[in-house]
Amino acid sequence: MTIITVSREFGSGGREFAKSLAEELQFTYYDKEIIRAVAEEMNLDPGYIDSIMEHMPGIGLIPLNIGRSFAATALDAQTHYFDNDRVYGEQTKVIHELSQRGPCVFVGRCSDYILRDRNVLRIFVYADMPAKVARCRERSAENENFTDRLLAKKIKDVDSNRMRYYQYFTDQKWGNPLNYDLCLNTSGKDIKTLAKTVAVLVKEREKLQG
Amino acid sequence: MTIITVSREFGSGGREFAKSLAEELQFTYYDKEIIRAVAEEMNLDPGYIDSIMEHMPGIGLIPLNIGRSFAATALDAQTHYFDNDRVYGEQTKVIHELSQRGPCVFVGRCSDYILRDRNVLRIFVYADMPAKVARCRERSAENENFTDRLLAKKIKDVDSNRMRYYQYFTDQKWGNPLNYDLCLNTSGKDIKTLAKTVAVLVKEREKLQG
Repeated sequence: MTIITVSREFGSGGREFAKSLAEELQFTYYDKEIIRAVAEEMNLDPGYIDSIMEHMPGIGLIPLNIGRSFAATALDAQTHYFDNDRVYGEQTKVIHELSQRGPCVFVGRCSDYILRDRNVLRIFVYADMPAKVARCRERSAENENFTDRLLAKKIKDVDSNRMRYYQYFTDQKWGNPLNYDLCLNTSGKDIKTLAKTVAVLVKEREKLQG
Repeated sequence: MTIITVSREFGSGGREFAKSLAEELQFTYYDKEIIRAVAEEMNLDPGYIDSIMEHMPGIGLIPLNIGRSFAATALDAQTHYFDNDRVYGEQTKVIHELSQRGPCVFVGRCSDYILRDRNVLRIFVYADMPAKVARCRERSAENENFTDRLLAKKIKDVDSNRMRYYQYFTDQKWGNPLNYDLCLNTSGKDIKTLAKTVAVLVKEREKLQG
């Protein structure tokens, strides 16, 4: 049974790639589903879970609510850190459980690390900055108002968060090729075509592994 | 017409992979052939060409022949640098020429950079250090006498040379994933199986590109 994890740089088209790959292979696709399952288990709002997962908060990122006492602020920070750990614990359980159900593709959420002891095909999807900026522009009309430079900064910020989150929980460097079996550069490529070619690779791999 | 370049970390099995891939696809395989062609064109010894290509000599690496004057030594160094540039020029011509002849796989020699304006599939093959050490041990009986640590050092040295050579002539960082379309981790993998799976990906890519 093949399990695929897709880690992706923001704007690289990694999510679209993962979705197309799952469709091609008729595998189950897990992305926001992970968030929903964790939210349900923890009886918390999915939006709140989404804001935590893959976003490692430094103290500076926690709203400080000017006017409240330092003690209260420190407590907020503590709760936030505590939730972070609880969410990661739940996320680990959920990903393990979903991975038992059948062939599937996971997007992000440290799934490559969480499933490291299984025979998982770990894919990393990346692209050069101009390609990522162009993709972000295509994807959202509101990005029209941003300069290329500002978009590049936003892209870097999202990835810095993912990097810190990943490193905090896995003690590994996010994006280090050694953590993946296959790294794919999407710059200048059609994502659906790429997904189709990788799908045949996955099928061939299944055939050869028996 | 598909042209593939394979850049590889020393000990990653990249050459074996490239050879198997070429066999699977019935593509022409260019490796030492590049050296022979350059040697012939320049009317120089293939062994000498091999010692230059992908080995960027720092001054320290040139035999200093104690007892000879500084002038002679400086001249040697100059000749060596001069040959380096001439070899690279010839290598560029040879790689361009070979790439016109039909579907093929090139191993190393900056072929990914030299053919950057063509529609080339650029593959980078890498592995973790324990896998590379194990592969080097398998490959050569003489490596039996080396400790793992010493073998690791030798592996790093070869790659440092390739890195400097590549950077000197291309002004790019060797091994930077952005310079490749596909990066493959061979750690714990069977190279022939990997070549077979990538071969079906190449065929699918040809089909989809029409």
